[in-house]
Amino acid sequence: MRFNLSSSELVKALSAVSGAVPNKATLPILETILFKSEDGQLRLTATDLEISIIEYMDADIEEDGAVAIPARRLTETLRQLPDIPVAFEVDEKFNVKFRTDKGTYKLVGEDPDEFPEVPSLDEGHTLETAKDDMLKAINKTLFAVSNDDLRPAMMGVYFDIGSEESKFVATDGHRLVRYIRQDLTSDKDINFIVPEKALSLVQKALHGEECLLTITEDHARFKSGNTIVITRLINEQYPNYDSVIPRENDKTLIINKEQMLATVKRVAIFSSSTTRQIRLQLQPDKLTIRAEDIDMSSEAKETIACEYDNEEEMEIGFNAKYLADVLGNVDDEEVHFEFSTPNRAGIVKPSEEDQNEQMLMLVMPVMLNTYA
Amino acid sequence: MRFNLSSSELVKALSAVSGAVPNKATLPILETILFKSEDGQLRLTATDLEISIIEYMDADIEEDGAVAIPARRLTETLRQLPDIPVAFEVDEKFNVKFRTDKGTYKLVGEDPDEFPEVPSLDEGHTLETAKDDMLKAINKTLFAVSNDDLRPAMMGVYFDIGSEESKFVATDGHRLVRYIRQDLTSDKDINFIVPEKALSLVQKALHGEECLLTITEDHARFKSGNTIVITRLINEQYPNYDSVIPRENDKTLIINKEQMLATVKRVAIFSSSTTRQIRLQLQPDKLTIRAEDIDMSSEAKETIACEYDNEEEMEIGFNAKYLADVLGNVDDEEVHFEFSTPNRAGIVKPSEEDQNEQMLMLVMPVMLNTYA
Repeated sequence: MRFNLSSSELVKALSAVSGAVPNKATLPILETILFKSEDGQLRLTATDLEISIIEYMDADIEEDGAVAIPARRLTETLRQLPDIPVAFEVDEKFNVKFRTDKGTYKLVGEDPDEFPEVPSLDEGHTLETAKDDMLKAINKTLFAVSNDDLRPAMMGVYFDIGSEESKFVATDGHRLVRYIRQDLTSDKDINFIVPEKALSLVQKALHGEECLLTITEDHARFKSGNTIVITRLINEQYPNYDSVIPRENDKTLIINKEQMLATVKRVAIFSSSTTRQIRLQLQPDKLTIRAEDIDMSSEAKETIACEYDNEEEMEIGFNAKYLADVLGNVDDEEVHFEFSTPNRAGIVKPSEEDQNEQMLMLVMPVMLNTYA
Repeated sequence: MRFNLSSSELVKALSAVSGAVPNKATLPILETILFKSEDGQLRLTATDLEISIIEYMDADIEEDGAVAIPARRLTETLRQLPDIPVAFEVDEKFNVKFRTDKGTYKLVGEDPDEFPEVPSLDEGHTLETAKDDMLKAINKTLFAVSNDDLRPAMMGVYFDIGSEESKFVATDGHRLVRYIRQDLTSDKDINFIVPEKALSLVQKALHGEECLLTITEDHARFKSGNTIVITRLINEQYPNYDSVIPRENDKTLIINKEQMLATVKRVAIFSSSTTRQIRLQLQPDKLTIRAEDIDMSSEAKETIACEYDNEEEMEIGFNAKYLADVLGNVDDEEVHFEFSTPNRAGIVKPSEEDQNEQMLMLVMPVMLNTYA
């Protein structure tokens, strides 16, 4: 195999696939990247057996072939090079030699036949989506995914694609996001759970105008531009999240997002480091946020102007981290809260939305201690 | 005690002293910062018992007093505030309350009498130095300090201040720096070893035009602008470093620094990860750098143009990391090497120097394996 390419183009392609190279591989072949010539292009593949990434790049291919090259050493060397032409030569024993005008470098490659097969998904059901829509669905839900191994279903984002709308849901039991898009539909109802790690790699891989999503029983494939991410799905039943969304909420709070987020972060410093509990006191046109740490005898109190028009005052407690995460996920200047009672979840919505989308977030309250 | 100040000014002063607050203190009082009113100013002090930092700042002092305030919680809160006025009130039980127009915050302070005494150094010998000279002496030597607990003398920079010149020396046994300044002298010969951590804090603390250096038997004090750093000295005999500097070096190599540094870094990737050994082959007007890793069957070779006018070829081995560190410490475009034999240290000098300064670095060679 012989090919020539630019070092910076190759660095870009290596970075694109490197997310799928495991840090500590049980199989040494997983620490390599498969290089293969295909229709005058070069195809790079990396896999950790759960997730695979394929990247196509232009190269001047002088002799077709394939080889698996150790990922780390190759990437490190190329990163240290300026943008110059590099000539690769691979012999029949998979010894890799590459040359620049600065010097020559030799590495031992592996037999490409040893490299794991990547699922083809040719039988799958394919949906065409706009890249920006898919990216937003991922960006808005990913932060709420659980990392609790004991509840594997919640360790991914739930895609529920129907004929009228699509729902993207994530929750860790403390907070929940449900993002709905009306313009993303399928004639066939499909739902599946995509692991968190795969989606964080898809986030970085979406470079094209579109994102083609292909689904089979066990796998999903995201294709955009020159990059393909293939992942195994989480084969579990997603919890019935609808039942935790309170239906009747008679209390509405409209407030400046940045101001509230800054206040939550400041006041939280004075909360107990174990519970991170802060209390929100809602009064007409005034929100007071308090925290206290009994062990450290410290406390803080801040008041913010807001729109809250219910006559009934309410006090509700939250874990400051979860509340801050949810507020941080709102892009608008103002945020809408809906409450029913102090023991039911608070609902958080952006103040403005596209007609095709609908976002709802939910934060579970914490029981307030009565010592204050 | 009562005082008012700007939150951003206080954040600056807290950052200035926070380097001396230990991460894990055995004594809780060390996790506080001592606030004390002094001649209409506020004096902040932090100490880990080895190193103390004192910072003076302007404040509107309504009532004199002193209190030790928990460093972390105070700094975290203030960092979250925009630049606004803050009013502090401390009661006789050292409860600290501070108010902004956003809210009120309470902390429990400690009795200032519990705060460790900081050495005064009033009896010491004081030298006036230009801040830039002191900073350069520290910047140029600090990287070579040893972190080997078994050789405590080498865990700091050796200051050797005489009537004709001052020498600043650091070494870890693998490389050595000796920086001489002719314009920094003292009528009395003094020499002492300053711990690495203290100097890295002094680096950040030098804000004034000058740096006043005061020395006693056990301590050194660096005073510049509003900041004072006081450190205990390393009470050890500094090794006789002069004997390792080769005197007769008949081989001179002049080479572009950036080019050589980039080559060393690239080639080093192909060296054995245990030895990091690279070999330099010096030929007339040509330097070849090679590395090989037998375990990984990988190798690299690069050639750079240079000035080397000795007829005798030479091959010498180095640890790539130490060579790269030394090269990285040269500011000029070109660097001068001097060599004698492959088993003696290589000398590295910048190509241009101020008349008042003289820098010499040294890298110990490694024995070359003969398998290549």
